[in-house]
Amino acid sequence: MTKQELFEQIKEKQSFLCVGLDTDLNKIPKHLLDSDDPIYEFNKSIINATAKYCVAYKPNLAFYEAAGLDGWLSFEKTVAYIKQRYPEMFLIADAKRGDIGNTSEMYARSFFDNLKMDAVTVAPYMGEDSVRPFLVQKEKWVILLALTSNKGSNDFQLIEDGNGEAIFEKVLKISQQWASDEEMMYVVGATQDKLFSRVRKIAPNHFLLVPGIGAQGGSLEAVCKVGMNSSCGLLVNSSRAIIYADNSEDFATAAGKEAHKVQLEMAEMLNKYL
Amino acid sequence: MTKQELFEQIKEKQSFLCVGLDTDLNKIPKHLLDSDDPIYEFNKSIINATAKYCVAYKPNLAFYEAAGLDGWLSFEKTVAYIKQRYPEMFLIADAKRGDIGNTSEMYARSFFDNLKMDAVTVAPYMGEDSVRPFLVQKEKWVILLALTSNKGSNDFQLIEDGNGEAIFEKVLKISQQWASDEEMMYVVGATQDKLFSRVRKIAPNHFLLVPGIGAQGGSLEAVCKVGMNSSCGLLVNSSRAIIYADNSEDFATAAGKEAHKVQLEMAEMLNKYL
Repeated sequence: MTKQELFEQIKEKQSFLCVGLDTDLNKIPKHLLDSDDPIYEFNKSIINATAKYCVAYKPNLAFYEAAGLDGWLSFEKTVAYIKQRYPEMFLIADAKRGDIGNTSEMYARSFFDNLKMDAVTVAPYMGEDSVRPFLVQKEKWVILLALTSNKGSNDFQLIEDGNGEAIFEKVLKISQQWASDEEMMYVVGATQDKLFSRVRKIAPNHFLLVPGIGAQGGSLEAVCKVGMNSSCGLLVNSSRAIIYADNSEDFATAAGKEAHKVQLEMAEMLNKYL
Repeated sequence: MTKQELFEQIKEKQSFLCVGLDTDLNKIPKHLLDSDDPIYEFNKSIINATAKYCVAYKPNLAFYEAAGLDGWLSFEKTVAYIKQRYPEMFLIADAKRGDIGNTSEMYARSFFDNLKMDAVTVAPYMGEDSVRPFLVQKEKWVILLALTSNKGSNDFQLIEDGNGEAIFEKVLKISQQWASDEEMMYVVGATQDKLFSRVRKIAPNHFLLVPGIGAQGGSLEAVCKVGMNSSCGLLVNSSRAIIYADNSEDFATAAGKEAHKVQLEMAEMLNKYL
């Protein structure tokens, strides 16, 4: 998907919501556990209930890999289901990969060729040759970790060099020598809203994937105020707050309601800051 | 496995070789492609031919995930095979994971509980809460990326703060507040031999997992000279140079010969520097 196509989706749906499919067997409604593939059944219901209100889905690979083979099967079936039922969705493999060239090529093949994902999250620590292999295919995206939403993000991402430039700023600058804003996005946590202006100074036109709204406590308005650009430039992710909104047999309806609530706020933000 | 048990293995086998199972369908001998599970068949032959000469195996997850479900199956079967036939082996899941707490917990569960691996490689960029979940189980190891062997390692790992301390040194220092040398190792590339002394100044007692010998051109002697400590402290990985030593029907014999050659050099190094 191109940047323009993504922006068109956002305008049409009046939403820049990405629903994180962090599906955990220990958290889904108990009545699903009797089915052959509880994770897939849960995802299907969540997807059907939320598709109207979001433009992207982001399965976090860890949750699927934790279930081994069965988990991979659930993941592949979920991706295939979205592709078939909602082909307009922007599909992000939240894999946080990053390895040397020949290995990253393998991951790129896995996510783009085999699974037909639109984007993969990639960790920057190993540098250019760990990221480039993900950039060979047109209309496929690398979403590079820049400034994450977790507490530990301070451990290394905020370390400053002699000129007071932080590592996350180095990542934003140096990676722009590898790819344009038509093929790269950055992860910038909603919990980092005080640093958003520093991000936008270096990357004014890029899309940012923003986790940390909801369960992690980031504020949508604060993020939009400093983070939105002329093509929206934001994909705001919510996982737990939506998919685990309710644990009863009506879990999907509750998830849909929650997603709708966020979509309405987003429509307001688009109207206010776009 | 404890640090002492690993050292005992090294002394007994006179080897600190880790064989990287970076198994690629496009590189294995053609005659294997007719079997039901070529990757598993290849791995079994390589393992049986090299087990005498190494103390560890390191399947790189990317190569298996690239093959999707079948790849995961080959990976799980390979791990189970090693566990059953060679229970003394130190098993490393080269996964380079790193995500927020609840997600890293999932990975820890996947690799330690389900797959019974001894160690997982972890990326440091997201900081403490992305690493801690891997540290909850006794005799299980985190192998943290510090200084990698690839060209791109210079992009961020060598950036220095105001006091001339590089990011890789920060990773070595800060991570020692999270775990001891009984539960954490570091990845330090053989191609970085000039920086090994800086690593050993900060982490004198830790085991280092050292990729980059062979195909990537690092020197074993250079690494041992500065990197070996009183409990060896080195696991030197070789992947392509051993497993792809030969592409004929005798590939396993050739791999065994290559591994034996490395083991003999290592015996010499242990004799010289331990």
